[in-house]
Formats: sequence, structure tokens, C-alpha cells
Amino acid sequence: MKKYLPKIGLFGLGTVGQGLLNIIQKSSLPFEISAIVDRSFQKKQDLIGKIPASSDPGLILDNQEIDIIVEVIGGVDLPLFIIREALDKKKNVVTANKFLLAQHGYALFSKARENGVKIGFEASVAGAIPIIRNLENIFWYEQIPLLEGILNGTTNYILTCMRTEKKDYPEALADAQRLGLAEADPALDINGTDAAHKLALLASLISKKWIDYNNIYVRGIGNLRINDISWTEKMGYRVKQISRYHLHDGKMFLSVEPSIIRPGHYLWDVEFENNAIVFQGAYSGNHMFVGKGAGSYPTAYSVLSDIMHIIQGNYNPYIANDCQWHYDYPSPIDDNENAFYIRLPVRDEPGVLAQITAILSENHISIASVHQDAPLETTDNPVDIIIVTHKCYRKSIHNILNLLEKSKVLQGEAVFLAMDEN
Amino acid sequence: MKKYLPKIGLFGLGTVGQGLLNIIQKSSLPFEISAIVDRSFQKKQDLIGKIPASSDPGLILDNQEIDIIVEVIGGVDLPLFIIREALDKKKNVVTANKFLLAQHGYALFSKARENGVKIGFEASVAGAIPIIRNLENIFWYEQIPLLEGILNGTTNYILTCMRTEKKDYPEALADAQRLGLAEADPALDINGTDAAHKLALLASLISKKWIDYNNIYVRGIGNLRINDISWTEKMGYRVKQISRYHLHDGKMFLSVEPSIIRPGHYLWDVEFENNAIVFQGAYSGNHMFVGKGAGSYPTAYSVLSDIMHIIQGNYNPYIANDCQWHYDYPSPIDDNENAFYIRLPVRDEPGVLAQITAILSENHISIASVHQDAPLETTDNPVDIIIVTHKCYRKSIHNILNLLEKSKVLQGEAVFLAMDEN
Repeated sequence: MKKYLPKIGLFGLGTVGQGLLNIIQKSSLPFEISAIVDRSFQKKQDLIGKIPASSDPGLILDNQEIDIIVEVIGGVDLPLFIIREALDKKKNVVTANKFLLAQHGYALFSKARENGVKIGFEASVAGAIPIIRNLENIFWYEQIPLLEGILNGTTNYILTCMRTEKKDYPEALADAQRLGLAEADPALDINGTDAAHKLALLASLISKKWIDYNNIYVRGIGNLRINDISWTEKMGYRVKQISRYHLHDGKMFLSVEPSIIRPGHYLWDVEFENNAIVFQGAYSGNHMFVGKGAGSYPTAYSVLSDIMHIIQGNYNPYIANDCQWHYDYPSPIDDNENAFYIRLPVRDEPGVLAQITAILSENHISIASVHQDAPLETTDNPVDIIIVTHKCYRKSIHNILNLLEKSKVLQGEAVFLAMDEN
Repeated sequence: MKKYLPKIGLFGLGTVGQGLLNIIQKSSLPFEISAIVDRSFQKKQDLIGKIPASSDPGLILDNQEIDIIVEVIGGVDLPLFIIREALDKKKNVVTANKFLLAQHGYALFSKARENGVKIGFEASVAGAIPIIRNLENIFWYEQIPLLEGILNGTTNYILTCMRTEKKDYPEALADAQRLGLAEADPALDINGTDAAHKLALLASLISKKWIDYNNIYVRGIGNLRINDISWTEKMGYRVKQISRYHLHDGKMFLSVEPSIIRPGHYLWDVEFENNAIVFQGAYSGNHMFVGKGAGSYPTAYSVLSDIMHIIQGNYNPYIANDCQWHYDYPSPIDDNENAFYIRLPVRDEPGVLAQITAILSENHISIASVHQDAPLETTDNPVDIIIVTHKCYRKSIHNILNLLEKSKVLQGEAVFLAMDEN
């Protein structure tokens, strides 16, 4: 008697879909790809071979024999339609789509639970790093007060490139695009939204509540300039775009923002397009996971491991009703204290520093250090004043930046960076 | 109706057992500790409370209701008896005992398979780092040509301490013992056997064959001196005790030995008692896991996660017959080429260097660099000659060390270290 092989329907033969097909063809795995849906399937016949293919989602959705659908199309509208339909038809779902899950995960996970099927989403966060399964299974019983991650390879590449190759932001971005590390429209990477999608999924797993990514404090790297990178480097620090989950005094703080880290920080050496996640376990101590955050095969392998996880019938906390997600909301980050780096491009004229320090003092911001590379002669170009503060509330920083803008001292955009304490 | 709670029998209320009891008491977990066996259970009544306890293993082994036994006694003979009995009685087993598994794993895993029960051994390798489950589940379908690990916290602590605090080996060892990081008899840690036990288990998982730890090439750190640490540091390198699995041209090489790594190596910043594992996935790229290698709670958490893994009925490759372990044998490491660091304590007299270089040359060892801090005047104390070779076969190194010993040039033990290429 022939052993029953689970049947997979694959949506999307782009980079990840092709990688997945390649791995499957080279391996001996206990399932079969029964159908492929791709809008330009006709141009990909050499890849597809004898597998039934179409541009019509019905080929997979209407096939009652298909147990698991894999969605690696990207975008939101079509995947949302497909995944809803698949869950309604009691098919398990594997997706790499963090955007979709961050936006519609609450409804989709609820639907999956009602229908007794699973959603695998390992590939949606940090590519090949198996952080979802490690949080969902191995560390599900651990208390995790702190998690920090470099969850976006594009911004990490740009920041590394600015530091090591002394390139300013636009050049570094262009390099990333040339290398295929940034989208033609890199807005979601640069402005922090992509990392916020991923952090929302991780924070939901840790807190066992549903976190809406819209409630995460997010700042991008788009206003950083080579000056910020070189000043922080002179001080012995590095700038990283860090996604952070922090439980402190019973309050949950969530942020994605460019942050200053010190030597010895776990994420110090995570460079270029690598991703990494560090977390504290109350019992098990500090953990770090480092790996490829993107790419055809790394992402495809995570999809494969989700497929196998479902086929093996392994534990899934949502279906097991160990996790009945309710919405939860992070506390406003303004309630949290930090030391800050501030760069102020100002007019090069007498009295400016006095004006600035007066405003800081009135707002109870205590200065740890001030730096200015004054030109020998006054100039019409703005000069940078760099201030590092002692710990203060973030709202004080917002206050003084507003005041400085009104006072017309600023000759360009002020930049501030939080100092990471960990 | 009350939900059925799986029943656990706990052998051993030492450091790990007590940590486990504490975590369980503080958490809400779907199982109960039904009995405890500990040789001095009478002195630990405040910990044990109302749980039935005894020094007699029969209390657990003869209890037909117990589903899972946890063995955290340590040693080999008693645990071997207990685990055999438990498996015969179709009880699942969770153990932190790498020594036992490395010695008797082949028979024990076979027995578990025959009886349809599982052996969880996450805690046996690298403490809190979930490497076993990640290899057994998430990366089971990956091809892994290279794994390197710092699997022994004691030796990593000693080497870090020698470098950062400029202490010689005996002082650094004494420090480690004072801090509870080394056993009173640290031989198994120092001579590499403990790491070899762990590497054998990891290599078995990766190769899906059974690897006997006795076939691993093992060298300890006991003959390293502060000179070796400071010389390699001057060259810009670090010395780490590295456990290595390497599949090369179809041959498997396994080694545990003090090795020289370059800056940028993944394990460069893994310091003091931390453990870390790096591996290459053919598809998923490079991965690194860092965490606590030992300690009461970190080890206990791994035991707990194994208990939950069994209770959840998750996939286990041995029971699923996806892995029918047969013995496999690594290739002799002498067939592998490396660059080497060699320190030769020699008599401080004319002609010695000429004699040495002649012997190297006759054995086709090409010298990359030679260092000698010659005292201004000749002395009766031996002086160190440091040689870094180009790539050569390891047997050539053994050859020349034999020849040098016979030639009476050496005034003490020669030390050599392999240069890690990765």
C-alpha cells in the first residue's frame, strides 16, 4: 500500500517560491506539490514541469485534496483573499507575509482556530532565523522581559555601509538597491514599518496577546546623515535600527528606532544584511539567534520547516487553546527614560550654544557632553552641535526640539537617537 | 470532568532538580510531579513538601501511572540502570546526562524506539541553548556541512580569563573552581572529553548516524600557557576550545581542540562561561545560537521544554523511524590540512633555530612566520620560538614534534594550535 502523501498548493513562483521548488526537488520529503498558482505561470513552464499550474487561485482553493497552501505571493489584497478562503476550506496555511499577518493576523488566527487548522509563519520574521518556532514551542513557557532585534536587513546594511565605507545615506541606499537588498520603493524598510510588522508578531507571541503594529512607536533611519554615524563612532558607539520589546514594572514598551549601542552589546557585530534577535529568559538567561534575514533559499527553508511542522502534527499554541489572543496595547514610550544623542545643525554665530543650553536647562535636561567642531572662521553653512544627555523623558526631547525649531536656531532637521541601556 | 495531567517522576534533587522544582512551582504547567527520588531526600523535605519521596528508585519505576521520568542525578551507573528500566516500562525519559548518552545512547535510543517512547536530551548539550530541538525538528531537513561550537563553559572561562586578566593556566583554573564553573576534578572539562560527548550527540543528529565519542579527535587545554595566549593575541588572534563537525569532500571530520580564530569569526566574542554554536545550512545559510551553557535554571528550563515537547506529542525523528541510527566513523583528522601555530621552548644557544627550520623543511612544512623574543644575553632558561606554518598535514606536525623531542632541542612541552579557516 502506498503511503499517503500530504498535498501542497503553492501560490507564487517568485524568488521564494522558486527557491522552495528547488529545495523540494533536491530533497526526499514526505509531501508533494499538487498545484501551482502564479500570474505568469506560462513563462515558468521549465520550472513547473508536470505540476498542474494556473493563474486562477481556484486551481488550488477548489481542490479538496490539498491539505496545506503556501502563500509566497507578497502584497496584501490577493493573499488575504486566498488565505481566508483556504482557512474557510479547512486548509492549513504557510505564509512569509508579515505585512498581511501584522494587519489581519487577529482575524486570520481566529479563523484558523475555529476551523482547526494552522498558520505557519516562520518565514515572515527574520527569514531563516527560527525565532517563531522557538518562541511558539521551546520558549512558550518562559517569561521574556526583554527582546531586541535587528529585523530589517535593508536598514542594517545601509547603517553598516555608512559606517564602514563612509558613505552618506543616499549613496548607501543606492548601494543596497543595486545589490537587491532594498526594494525599488524602500519606504517600508527605511521608515521602520517593515520591522514594526515583525516586532508586532514577536511581541504577540511573547505576551500571548495580540499587538497591533500601529501601536508601536516607530522611527525610521531616513533622516540620519553620515555625521551621525561618524560622531557616534568617535564616541565609541554604533547606530543600529533596533526593534525592542521591553516589559518594565508591568508596562510593555514597544519601539522600532535607530538606537546607539555600546561595545559588548549582543547586536554590536551584527553587520550588513544579517538579522539577529536577542532575548532574556527569566529562567534560561540571555539568548542570541543570528542568521540570514532574507533571500530565496533562507526564506524558502523556513517555509519548508513550517510545512513539515504541520505535517508532523506538532503542537500549535493557538489551536491548542493555550493562547486565546486578546488585544493588548503597549504603554506610551514617552513614559520611559533614556539618555539621548542629539545633533542640531545651527547657524554659526555667537550665542547659539547659550540659547540651546538655556532651553535644555529649562526643560530639566541634564547634559552629559557637548561637541562642536567649530570652523576657524564663521561661515554661512550650518554647523553641527552634538549633545549627549543624561537620562530624561522622551517628551522633554520632543519639547526642546519644538522650541528650538520655533526659535529659528535650527538650520536643518535635528536628529536624536536613544541610547540603548542593554 | 478533570483533565488528565501527565505524571512526572523526578530522579535527583541537586542543582538542576531543585531549579526544575522551583520553575514548576512558579508556573502553571499541564503536568504534575508525582514522585521524587533522591539519596538525601530526607534533608530536603522543605523543598519536596507533600510530593512522595524516597531514596529507592522503585518509588518511580514501579509506579505504573508515571508517564515521564526526569533523570538529573549525574554519573553513569545509576542513571543507566534507571533509564533502561524506565524505557523497558514504556516510560518517556528526559535527561541532562551527556556522559551517559554519549556512552550508551545507541542502545538507549534503540530501546526507546522499540518501546515507542521518547528520550529528551535538550539539556545535555549547551545548557539553555535549544540546539537539540532545533536540529531534531526545525533543521532536520537541512544539509549541514559545518558546525562549530564552544560547548564547554569551563574551558571557555579559563581561556577568556587567561587573555583578559593575564593569568596563567593554574590560576585561571583555580578562579573557575572558586566561581563554581569547574568541578573539583575538572579533568573531563579540561581534557576535552565533556565537549566530545556533546559533539558526538550533535554530530549524530546532523549525520543521522551514530557517532561514538571515542572516535573524535580530542585535545585539551591543559598544556596551554599564558605565553600561547599572549603570542596569539599579539598576532591579532584568539584561542578558543572549539568542537567541530566538518563534512568535506564526502568525508566527516570531528575534532575538539584549542584552535586559533581570527577577528570576524562568529565565535570571537563568545567569552567566559557562555556557550555558542554556529552552523552552516546549505539552504538557510549561517546560523548562530548563543546562550548559557550551564547553571541550575538554564539547564532546568531545557529539561522543562523537553517534558512539554513529549507531553505535546511532537515529532521525534527516532520514533518516527525517520532516523534509523547506524554507526558511522569520522575520517582521520590527519588527512586534513591546516595552518598551525607552534610554540617550542628551546635552549637559548646558537644554531637552535637553524636545526628547527631544517627539520621543518625536511618535512615539507613551509613557515609563514617565526617569532622569538630573544633576551639580550643568553640564559639558561628556555626561550620560546613561535612558528606559524602555511597549510600542511597534521601528521607532519606530529612528525616534527617527535623529531624535535628526540633531538633534545626542546626544553619543555611543545604546544601546537590549529588555525580555524572559518
